[in-house]
Amino acid sequence: MSVLPSSFETLSDKLAKLPGVGRKSAQRLAFHIISMPDADAEAFAAAILDAKKTIRECAVCRNLSESEVCTVCDNPRRDPRLVCVVSDPKGVLAIERSREYGGVFHVLHGVISPLQGVSPNDLRIRELMERVAAGAVDEVILATNPDVEGETTARYIARLLAPFEVRTTRLAYGLPSGSSLEFADDATLTRALEGRVEY
Amino acid sequence: MSVLPSSFETLSDKLAKLPGVGRKSAQRLAFHIISMPDADAEAFAAAILDAKKTIRECAVCRNLSESEVCTVCDNPRRDPRLVCVVSDPKGVLAIERSREYGGVFHVLHGVISPLQGVSPNDLRIRELMERVAAGAVDEVILATNPDVEGETTARYIARLLAPFEVRTTRLAYGLPSGSSLEFADDATLTRALEGRVEY
Repeated sequence: MSVLPSSFETLSDKLAKLPGVGRKSAQRLAFHIISMPDADAEAFAAAILDAKKTIRECAVCRNLSESEVCTVCDNPRRDPRLVCVVSDPKGVLAIERSREYGGVFHVLHGVISPLQGVSPNDLRIRELMERVAAGAVDEVILATNPDVEGETTARYIARLLAPFEVRTTRLAYGLPSGSSLEFADDATLTRALEGRVEY
Repeated sequence: MSVLPSSFETLSDKLAKLPGVGRKSAQRLAFHIISMPDADAEAFAAAILDAKKTIRECAVCRNLSESEVCTVCDNPRRDPRLVCVVSDPKGVLAIERSREYGGVFHVLHGVISPLQGVSPNDLRIRELMERVAAGAVDEVILATNPDVEGETTARYIARLLAPFEVRTTRLAYGLPSGSSLEFADDATLTRALEGRVEY
């Protein structure tokens, strides 16, 4: 029999299901939550429910949004004919961080992964093709992660795009800025050599 | 302007306030939560509110409890005259893990820390003294953490207990079981030497 209340165990169990949270840290978080002022704990619970309730997918780019069309798609200063395809909203954040991108996005919500049972139909690929088929797009930048599943997904989409009059590109591979040759892995070096450009 | 909905940012901010959760992991947790099935997110929020609502301090030992008196204090097979004083409920869990302890507890809910503005009045020391003054206790084991604040707190309580007819003990210091001399720090080795016993 546990010496702690069952509602504590329940909370701790829920926390332990979050990604990267083990049993020990779940317990630590649960202790922290029950020692919060009531108002803070209520605000925390409300934030969870509120986020679940108000967040949906943008009707155009499928990124997270509180309105029918997200703030990026709705921004007249962004070029709607340049579409960057990312696997998830974290990709949108990463590209935005560069402050260099003036186009819009398309969020797939996953990558093709036969091992995890994710097929192209589970992703927002059909919605991307509809945007392209409607003639609304000049260029599609495939910006899935440079790993096996990301590249498989990018290749799959590139094949689907081939019949359309749309430029299909992908992000450059190479050495990370500020890194050192010494610590670069073989695959990265191979890619950096293959992608070498005139000086 | 952020490209993510404000309710997402709110949730992410709340998560970032949890101990050991940085901005990046808060964002990752928030993404996980909004991709949960509705029922799971609702159960998570409910678990927070439920734990806050139902958990209080045991009237006797001040450990977390859902009832007036906790399951340890209420257990007739535990010796109520042997009281182990710990700084927080995690201490109760740790002592219980040893499966060797048959007494009861007293949870201080903190340690004396002038730097963090925690004085003896902020802890459940008065409640401990009331238990002792009522003549309900034969032995008090001081089991605060073996760090500066834990030892200060233990010494403070030991001084308060001196006038009473109660045995006051503390946990043994020494080498952790299964450890190696090579990696023991100086303070631990000093304590292990001081506490040496006949073979």
